[in-house]
Amino acid sequence: MRILLIGAGGLLGSAVHQALTDRGHKLVTAGRSSGDLRYDITDPAQIAALYEAAGRDGQLDAVASAAGSVPYRPVAEMTPQDWTAAFQGKVLSQVELVRQGLDQLSPRGSFTLITGVLARSPIVTGAAASLANGAVEAFVRAAAIEIAPQRINAVSPTVFTEALDVYGDFFPGFAPVGLAEVAQAYVRSIEGAETGRVFELGS
Amino acid sequence: MRILLIGAGGLLGSAVHQALTDRGHKLVTAGRSSGDLRYDITDPAQIAALYEAAGRDGQLDAVASAAGSVPYRPVAEMTPQDWTAAFQGKVLSQVELVRQGLDQLSPRGSFTLITGVLARSPIVTGAAASLANGAVEAFVRAAAIEIAPQRINAVSPTVFTEALDVYGDFFPGFAPVGLAEVAQAYVRSIEGAETGRVFELGS
Repeated sequence: MRILLIGAGGLLGSAVHQALTDRGHKLVTAGRSSGDLRYDITDPAQIAALYEAAGRDGQLDAVASAAGSVPYRPVAEMTPQDWTAAFQGKVLSQVELVRQGLDQLSPRGSFTLITGVLARSPIVTGAAASLANGAVEAFVRAAAIEIAPQRINAVSPTVFTEALDVYGDFFPGFAPVGLAEVAQAYVRSIEGAETGRVFELGS
Repeated sequence: MRILLIGAGGLLGSAVHQALTDRGHKLVTAGRSSGDLRYDITDPAQIAALYEAAGRDGQLDAVASAAGSVPYRPVAEMTPQDWTAAFQGKVLSQVELVRQGLDQLSPRGSFTLITGVLARSPIVTGAAASLANGAVEAFVRAAAIEIAPQRINAVSPTVFTEALDVYGDFFPGFAPVGLAEVAQAYVRSIEGAETGRVFELGS
């Protein structure tokens, strides 16, 4: 398949890139500062430009997102700008990737978005991340019933085993998940036939 | 208790007002175009003004929100402005009501926010509502662990029995819920000791 991968330069994106390449897929990578195509998907206008560039060499069969950024801060210290940054950085970006991608994707193509464990289990300073992940997961369930036979799923991991040295203290007792396992959820979403699913990894 | 009720002029807000008054509470009502205090909570600056006005006569023991508006439209017809309107109209408004309310509320005071069944079960044209409800419910779980002993819950009803004539066709086979029952979830949230809960009503 021909797959557009957003955020391929990151820790997760690299693992997804590897897994999809191993499966024989042809990838077009995109990111703000790395990848074949350089666009900032927090700006809906740049998503349009991204699709125009990605579509030049043929139709896409899948769009996979491994990109999303949100501020971490105690609730009491958040500002309206922080909540809005979380919305633009992880929700609007991915939702517009879907909405604008409907016409770019093959008839049975799929979207795979990234969320995370904070949608279901909170940590201190993670309220904006929880908000964003909860929004994307509910959107995935809703979009699935409208866009069929095109499909949409979310991948929702806990902390990555490979990132425990940096983030482990924020997730005491949470079961981490290895990047290779998370990447397989993208393979499942893209090559399988499921839709409207949130693939929860780790706990 | 002294309770600030947002959206008291609506169908749900009226029922909540009745239930809380019946329980002997003293209500201060607020809304964009009705209530004791007239403010638009989709604007964070007006929330600050609202709290200043509401706090003049003494400390608040609870804040209850029955206000939130989102656009309904097929995913393919949504615009970036529609997603943003849903965020501002139901997410940012309620999240800022909490964040700015932390200093206004008594030490064991509570926030009760409104979400809805679309967070868990989608309907066609409801993707922005799903997104907003999912965001608020995840936020409630996250905020609860930071703001204790202050508390926060969400009330998440299906279609109201009293609104079936207007909205029933959008919810085929969904079990409706009467406004009086929904209002009791506000009573439970405000007078009880639970926190971080999403009270699901109907199915």
